[in-house]
Amino acid sequence: MKLSYTGKTKDVYELEDGNYLLKFKDDVTGVDGVFDPGANTVGLTMEGAGRAGLRLTKFFFEILKQKGIPTHYIDADIEQATMTVKPAEVFGKGLEVICRYRAVGSFLRRYGLYAEEGQPLDAFVEVTLKDDGRQDPPISEDALDMLGILSKDEYQVLKSLTQQIGNVVKEELAKKGIELYDIKFEFGRVGEDKQIVLIDEISGGNMRAYKDGEYIEPLELEKMFL
Amino acid sequence: MKLSYTGKTKDVYELEDGNYLLKFKDDVTGVDGVFDPGANTVGLTMEGAGRAGLRLTKFFFEILKQKGIPTHYIDADIEQATMTVKPAEVFGKGLEVICRYRAVGSFLRRYGLYAEEGQPLDAFVEVTLKDDGRQDPPISEDALDMLGILSKDEYQVLKSLTQQIGNVVKEELAKKGIELYDIKFEFGRVGEDKQIVLIDEISGGNMRAYKDGEYIEPLELEKMFL
Repeated sequence: MKLSYTGKTKDVYELEDGNYLLKFKDDVTGVDGVFDPGANTVGLTMEGAGRAGLRLTKFFFEILKQKGIPTHYIDADIEQATMTVKPAEVFGKGLEVICRYRAVGSFLRRYGLYAEEGQPLDAFVEVTLKDDGRQDPPISEDALDMLGILSKDEYQVLKSLTQQIGNVVKEELAKKGIELYDIKFEFGRVGEDKQIVLIDEISGGNMRAYKDGEYIEPLELEKMFL
Repeated sequence: MKLSYTGKTKDVYELEDGNYLLKFKDDVTGVDGVFDPGANTVGLTMEGAGRAGLRLTKFFFEILKQKGIPTHYIDADIEQATMTVKPAEVFGKGLEVICRYRAVGSFLRRYGLYAEEGQPLDAFVEVTLKDDGRQDPPISEDALDMLGILSKDEYQVLKSLTQQIGNVVKEELAKKGIELYDIKFEFGRVGEDKQIVLIDEISGGNMRAYKDGEYIEPLELEKMFL
């Protein structure tokens, strides 16, 4: 198997059968040694972070499978901290899709004139470009279409899947008394029919979760959850 | 008549018949004494800037009237540098609507990973919030609807009017060998039926125009044009 990509928190290997193996690393994003899921740099290494992220990802991807929501997931090996996935083509040079249930983070920084901190948002979906040098700018449906990144029909599929998956995660967290504030996903096209599916991971590092009004750190969330 | 608002480049008076009078000032937006139509501060005062802006505004608003495109315009007095308009309610605390024909400015700063400088854009419409403290953030159709600023139906009207008006300006400039790169508009709701109409002005300060590949300063544009 061949290393095909070294990411901030994962390495990607190409398998001989055409599938891919994601190796979850213990590196987490952050700034100056402080964990920050929204950061674009690796901030620190936390023992066990890779496996904890994979455990949660496996849990959610298997629930999505049961519900018939398409993902790139095939299987996972927790001991090895690896996940086998179908090959997927990303949109353009990569998009992040955010589903928001409460106004915090960049939403509040942009729309604070119209929204109060923590105000409920109804599974609001927004898309940002993965572009570290330009601070991951938000992009509209029209711009995605015009720039050839995502067609209008694909946007509707992406938005609908984002809300469906966000709601699944929200419900699962609610069973443990945890409230989901927001979550970010990545999607890609799989197979000859270019089906849009969830890719990458669903772990503590992708979401903001709160219990009794207190923010829960990703590793803490993974411990509480599983 | 009563001064009801002092803006950066215009003062607004309420008339006794319920209409409003806009007084175009010679102040133009910019930074450190350099003119910049995108700036949020008054940078300098230029003799005759108010009248020049009004002359161009009158020219375009009268063409729009002939074409049946709704605006708040009633009439203008060039000598006094005043324009009489119908009362309009802005969306939320104010929006700017941009129509782009070439990739320059903030579009390029955000989407430079996918667009080259000067690349043609097909009357691409985007909306930003008027919020100096938050650098006039871009906002999507979904967010405008969710935050109660503009309904989805209104968004479609706004987008269509923006493209119609942008195309009118583009054609008029083309008659003088001038190419429109982008232009920003403001809209409001007028009358009991809350009709969406163009408000504010259409002047050099609202657009980027080029002749033979050279950027034309607003006052220069107004001289070349009229």
